[in-house]
Amino acid sequence: MSKEITARSQDYSQWYNDLVIKGALADYSAVRGCMVIKPYGFALWEKMRDTIDKMFKDTGHVNAYFPLFVPKSFLEKEEGHAEGFAKECAVVTHYRLKADPDKKGTLMVDPDSKLEEELIVRPTSEAIIWHTYKSWIQSYRDLPLLVNQWANVVRWEMRTRLFLRTSEFLWQEGHTAHATADEALEETLRMLDVYADFAENWMALPVIKGVKSANERFAGAVDTYCIEALMQDGKALQAGTSHFLGQNFARAFDVQFLSKENKQEYVWATSWGVSTRLVGALVMAHGDDDGLILPPRIAPVQVVIVPIYKGSDQKLLIDGKVGELLKQLRSSGVAVKYDDNDNNRPGWKFAEYEMKGVPLRIAIGARDIENNTVEIARRDTKEKTTVSMDGLSERIARLLEEIQQSMYNKAKAYRDEHITPADDWDEFVNILNEKGGFILAHWDGTVETEQKIKELTKATIRCIPLDGEKEAGKCILTGKPSSQRVLFAQAY
Amino acid sequence: MSKEITARSQDYSQWYNDLVIKGALADYSAVRGCMVIKPYGFALWEKMRDTIDKMFKDTGHVNAYFPLFVPKSFLEKEEGHAEGFAKECAVVTHYRLKADPDKKGTLMVDPDSKLEEELIVRPTSEAIIWHTYKSWIQSYRDLPLLVNQWANVVRWEMRTRLFLRTSEFLWQEGHTAHATADEALEETLRMLDVYADFAENWMALPVIKGVKSANERFAGAVDTYCIEALMQDGKALQAGTSHFLGQNFARAFDVQFLSKENKQEYVWATSWGVSTRLVGALVMAHGDDDGLILPPRIAPVQVVIVPIYKGSDQKLLIDGKVGELLKQLRSSGVAVKYDDNDNNRPGWKFAEYEMKGVPLRIAIGARDIENNTVEIARRDTKEKTTVSMDGLSERIARLLEEIQQSMYNKAKAYRDEHITPADDWDEFVNILNEKGGFILAHWDGTVETEQKIKELTKATIRCIPLDGEKEAGKCILTGKPSSQRVLFAQAY
Repeated sequence: MSKEITARSQDYSQWYNDLVIKGALADYSAVRGCMVIKPYGFALWEKMRDTIDKMFKDTGHVNAYFPLFVPKSFLEKEEGHAEGFAKECAVVTHYRLKADPDKKGTLMVDPDSKLEEELIVRPTSEAIIWHTYKSWIQSYRDLPLLVNQWANVVRWEMRTRLFLRTSEFLWQEGHTAHATADEALEETLRMLDVYADFAENWMALPVIKGVKSANERFAGAVDTYCIEALMQDGKALQAGTSHFLGQNFARAFDVQFLSKENKQEYVWATSWGVSTRLVGALVMAHGDDDGLILPPRIAPVQVVIVPIYKGSDQKLLIDGKVGELLKQLRSSGVAVKYDDNDNNRPGWKFAEYEMKGVPLRIAIGARDIENNTVEIARRDTKEKTTVSMDGLSERIARLLEEIQQSMYNKAKAYRDEHITPADDWDEFVNILNEKGGFILAHWDGTVETEQKIKELTKATIRCIPLDGEKEAGKCILTGKPSSQRVLFAQAY
Repeated sequence: MSKEITARSQDYSQWYNDLVIKGALADYSAVRGCMVIKPYGFALWEKMRDTIDKMFKDTGHVNAYFPLFVPKSFLEKEEGHAEGFAKECAVVTHYRLKADPDKKGTLMVDPDSKLEEELIVRPTSEAIIWHTYKSWIQSYRDLPLLVNQWANVVRWEMRTRLFLRTSEFLWQEGHTAHATADEALEETLRMLDVYADFAENWMALPVIKGVKSANERFAGAVDTYCIEALMQDGKALQAGTSHFLGQNFARAFDVQFLSKENKQEYVWATSWGVSTRLVGALVMAHGDDDGLILPPRIAPVQVVIVPIYKGSDQKLLIDGKVGELLKQLRSSGVAVKYDDNDNNRPGWKFAEYEMKGVPLRIAIGARDIENNTVEIARRDTKEKTTVSMDGLSERIARLLEEIQQSMYNKAKAYRDEHITPADDWDEFVNILNEKGGFILAHWDGTVETEQKIKELTKATIRCIPLDGEKEAGKCILTGKPSSQRVLFAQAY
């Protein structure tokens, strides 16, 4: 099975597709740019979603649901927002089909069902939500409003890649309303921290927190904050964004509130989101040439047990031992699967669960029953050990935590090795071509320079790191003065 | 606050809207036919969804996600299906907007972005899913396929009502594939039982299981099974459907499998769904003229505690006592809210939580602290009792179960009183006009008679009850022979 996966060294992009498709995470669909998320991929997304959802609720947020459609005129109201999304949206123009009189058995759009105003399938929901907030917010007592929604959104993409860039994707979008700029900014950064916490402690994915340059800002935002991760091919991936929207949407939709000081003021806003793109990040950050490697904390199956036997007598003995173990593991909350399917041989199963990235595999045979042992194999390091069945469930719990930590450490070591300072243009280009990864370099702060660097190298400013030190220097392209290094990389 | 609700006796339909809007479940949106599900309503839906989702997983199902869009040609493939849905669907015809050159600041559909083939926003997903299953199913080893998806769907409705009938709604749709007709039928009925179990034991809503007449069948199904509930105005509401699809979709999308006997055969299918409509059913089945009444097992807030005090000394004492209680209740899994918001008076809070249907309200004042008591008020019966704080959390747990059971009993008594046999036409019409509810009557089994009865009385055949006894009789309209009574009612 593992032979079918393209090696990373040979074709990284094909390797990624192989993992997604052969790992049974997702498939291309018959609808251009849309994917089918398969049961195993969806179980992974559910674990991620439920974890994030709990983090939102623990920080005081509630869920709601807003319409799929945004009237065209709503999109127009915030100018930057409209420009950002107009070019890539699915437009509903009619509400009925009818039998085609010229072609028996086929349907045509009924021209009599043309909508007076076109509806846009939401590319994001600021417009429809801020229209709604107008009726929810009257006074400072109604604030803050801390609302999130889990939804599908559509952004028409010409070039798509499973999970990383699809026309339809699943995400959450938080939309909060506040009485002051300070509060809104605090919320923006709080949610950035939530995302970083999730990425690092659940996905085992180290991230750099920063703020975007004007060029990379969300359409309609005053400032966009982000977390940036590094993939194994040295390219960066934006894993989540949190926007400080200022009063832009409140002005566009005329949402004012009566302040404690009895004044009418415009409301301050934030929005923030992560999407099924995170699944792509997970695949690319941790996988190897044998398949997926999933961090234990979000793996749909954490442990798989494979029996190795001849005849039903051996099978019965093994079933008995495994039964006890399953009970222990499940009662301590471990997601365990006992694969005793007769149709497949153990070797096939080993390859299958390696492909699917199950963190721990336990093999148990007749000899093991005699010796009171099992063989444990770690997916991340491929280490195999034969251990006693005594205290096995505690050992497994410890091992899962160890794998989680070790995957993070490995990803962090790789990431840290791939943050390289560059002090002039040649060095910059050299690092990009030879080593890849993040480059810390001075930039003169202008959109023009950023654009020029992008044209020349495909590298963009991923962010201005929040924990970056102030340091006088010269822009690598123009030589103009700069006060802080920013983070460059080629990116997904 | 309760004064603002229209009485049921005055205008049932307005009463319903008042409960939904003033109970903060949902709101009309700016998009025709679509609603905004507000945080409280969404929390209720989340509890329902999570419960149902667990029931699906416990019966061996997995979740997945399929595209929002269905290509027009896919919809055409199953003839009955196409006819059923063509007249009410949102059609995407373009994928881009551009600045309108004639009107500064506005956007227009870019005519150059016309799609070669129109995309339909899914009204249901049989077509796109069975297209996908073609590549997932080769042999009997791939069966059964037990997949569910939670999704939004759009059916263009001219007359909409919050939750009951909206153009966009949230639902789950199960789509299973089987090797034999028997297995598929067994699955169809298993899921009908799951729905009935959920309705009765979580929603406290008694239902009648039955099969639809040909006229009311799902477009593309061989047989549609349903659960039917009764609302307080004597009208029926279909609360869930489970379809036996035969080989219709397998033939339409050419999904065959190699059987154990080494033959190519078409796959057998089922589909089944419940939607946010259930929230509407909940409101109408249990509410009263003071607001919602939510069954404890799915209430987002099961217990609310309201402090009654003068000055911060009293407040501190109460906080201390309540703190202990909160801890006990939360540790035993009770969803409890302590509303010590200073902005509102106790009386306002009482009315507010009555409106929102919180099953139990606990009031605690300075006198209670002295006496080691609290006042408990049941939302369903409005009974108030002063009880000791000793053993309070156990008492609350018992009370919540008692309310759940008592709500079911009450709804069942009402429903049972409103199942009336009718033996001739006059009796039938009389019961419909005077009493409402379900009517058990003989029917000659033809579509024509069913249509005629509907035209004359607005009553439809809700179902042919699964547990109905065979009994010879004569059709109430035509006098032709019949072997079983069927269930008539006017319905939502």
